[in-house]
Amino acid sequence: MSFLENIRRVEPYVPGEQPRDSGVIKLNTNENPYPPSPAAAKALGAFSADSLRLYPDPAASSLVDAIAQRYGLAPGEVFVGVGSDDVLALLFLTFFNSGKPVLFPDITYSFYDVWAELFRIPYEQIPLDESFGIIPEDYFRENGGIVFPNPNAPTGKLLPLESVRRIVEGSPDSIVIIDEAYIDFGGESALPLIHEYDNVIVVQTFSKSRSAAGLRLGYAMSNASLIRYLNDVKYSFNSYTMNRLTIEAGAALIRDEEYFQSTIRRIIRTRQETTASLRDLGFIVPESAANFVFASHPSASGEELFTYLKSKKIYVRWWNKPRIRNYLRITIGTDEEMGILLEALKEYLRRSL
Amino acid sequence: MSFLENIRRVEPYVPGEQPRDSGVIKLNTNENPYPPSPAAAKALGAFSADSLRLYPDPAASSLVDAIAQRYGLAPGEVFVGVGSDDVLALLFLTFFNSGKPVLFPDITYSFYDVWAELFRIPYEQIPLDESFGIIPEDYFRENGGIVFPNPNAPTGKLLPLESVRRIVEGSPDSIVIIDEAYIDFGGESALPLIHEYDNVIVVQTFSKSRSAAGLRLGYAMSNASLIRYLNDVKYSFNSYTMNRLTIEAGAALIRDEEYFQSTIRRIIRTRQETTASLRDLGFIVPESAANFVFASHPSASGEELFTYLKSKKIYVRWWNKPRIRNYLRITIGTDEEMGILLEALKEYLRRSL
Repeated sequence: MSFLENIRRVEPYVPGEQPRDSGVIKLNTNENPYPPSPAAAKALGAFSADSLRLYPDPAASSLVDAIAQRYGLAPGEVFVGVGSDDVLALLFLTFFNSGKPVLFPDITYSFYDVWAELFRIPYEQIPLDESFGIIPEDYFRENGGIVFPNPNAPTGKLLPLESVRRIVEGSPDSIVIIDEAYIDFGGESALPLIHEYDNVIVVQTFSKSRSAAGLRLGYAMSNASLIRYLNDVKYSFNSYTMNRLTIEAGAALIRDEEYFQSTIRRIIRTRQETTASLRDLGFIVPESAANFVFASHPSASGEELFTYLKSKKIYVRWWNKPRIRNYLRITIGTDEEMGILLEALKEYLRRSL
Repeated sequence: MSFLENIRRVEPYVPGEQPRDSGVIKLNTNENPYPPSPAAAKALGAFSADSLRLYPDPAASSLVDAIAQRYGLAPGEVFVGVGSDDVLALLFLTFFNSGKPVLFPDITYSFYDVWAELFRIPYEQIPLDESFGIIPEDYFRENGGIVFPNPNAPTGKLLPLESVRRIVEGSPDSIVIIDEAYIDFGGESALPLIHEYDNVIVVQTFSKSRSAAGLRLGYAMSNASLIRYLNDVKYSFNSYTMNRLTIEAGAALIRDEEYFQSTIRRIIRTRQETTASLRDLGFIVPESAANFVFASHPSASGEELFTYLKSKKIYVRWWNKPRIRNYLRITIGTDEEMGILLEALKEYLRRSL
């Protein structure tokens, strides 16, 4: 019997391409087109490289405190990780151990089934309705936990808080994780539910609305009891996950509320204009509450459009998967970038129709 | 049935204290007393905070390439993680899935049993001999993998390369992980074995010899096939683990060979002097090949000495565990710090004997 038989073999998540070519218009991984608040540069400028010789604070307290303060929480209600993917992976490992299937939508963040496979957690994918909506009643069944993004990805569709509440109330004996990576772009957060119910965990990230995907910083918010269990697992995996630079820059970023709000306003405005322009070109575009739109054209396949745009050095995201094969997920860039995208699509449709 | 019953409950690893009080002499977590190479400050000074808006390269290629080049390896033979703890956790998850017990010493890095418990991997702790030596023959038994540090922690004892080779040859059907966090302080690395055997993985870190514990950067080196399996698991856990700052600073650090060598020479010299001085005071000090010494005194208990030193604001590490209860693990600091430590110990022994 060889060690080859004991390897955990998995089909990993495939992130969007990170082209090194700087001439590319990069609308494929939902990054923010605007730089992070100048507070980050200031914090990094004040950083003493000599301090790197020492381990960071394993609890990342100054960062946790700053996040807690921003949301009016106690520090014990906040957990930080290396991006929200790290946080979600640890949440799956900590809380989804019942043997019953974990539930999430069939069209959703494509990392959920990867984590379930990695940790050998059974799962069921609940179909969205025909307009890509989550139906709370569909989650009223025996389960080992529930997780969904709100707004959903890659559709951008927002679930109203009352529907989120119904899902939570339908499974009082399960942990319900609401993955709010995109909530700042116009949705209502489920954060108040963490004090109303004992089984709710809200996850957010610095990667989208705070323009810091390159910093790797995500966080979970819940009652102190669940956060403690999560921390126990984290401290059983890696004591020091947040490096000194991330702690400093992250705390500075979350304190700059004004910059954060103004960036979001710009992106929402561009999203509204882009949605309208795409619809003018004949695209079907569900209303998005995220920093991307999900668009399909009746007379051009998703693959064709994806390939064409790539040839023009415009990167968007496309999945060769049932139900969404004809859709592109397009990150909201700057107004200029969206103008170039729309021109390219116009040109393509003119030539091919 | 409540969600409370499905929580993964673990007894986490407890890292050494990270006191915030700057007046402390910190000899408790094996940090390097010297700052990292000035190359780190230079790389961070040149870093554009605006680039944080973009995800990092998920493969951290520039960092992986720099490490590969330093060791004469192909990039596909190197894996990077958030400190060697992250790397080791992922190695346990990837390779230790046989149902047979994983073997490691009874006195060793106290995270091994924590990872085994976390991932529900059976394990057996193999007693060190009376002088804290690893006996290769003791590992000649059915197992689901082997892991040990070399030099061992907290003893500092080095296992000669020929003995490491015997352990590897004794278990050709298991993965053997050699945790070389401290190898640069005078040991012979098992790195050549990764090309001689198909089951060997060597793990190293930037936290000790490269003075960058606060950066969180560790790496595994093995054949490309095992590194590929490890990467599959990593990409199933978190696509982007290394942030942009760590990639830049890490690549700069590993290229400054001269600074690295000179720092190590200083620490080895201080270790030799400290060992001699401790022995002059009556301490039993096994020969260390690490950046710490393990010391016991026939007329003072480990706990007494630990408590006394702490009252003097000198932090060392002590474990209330069988066999090592009377030992202190003392990190090698600057000559000045070791002078203060030795004076304090001298004073204590004078008063109490």
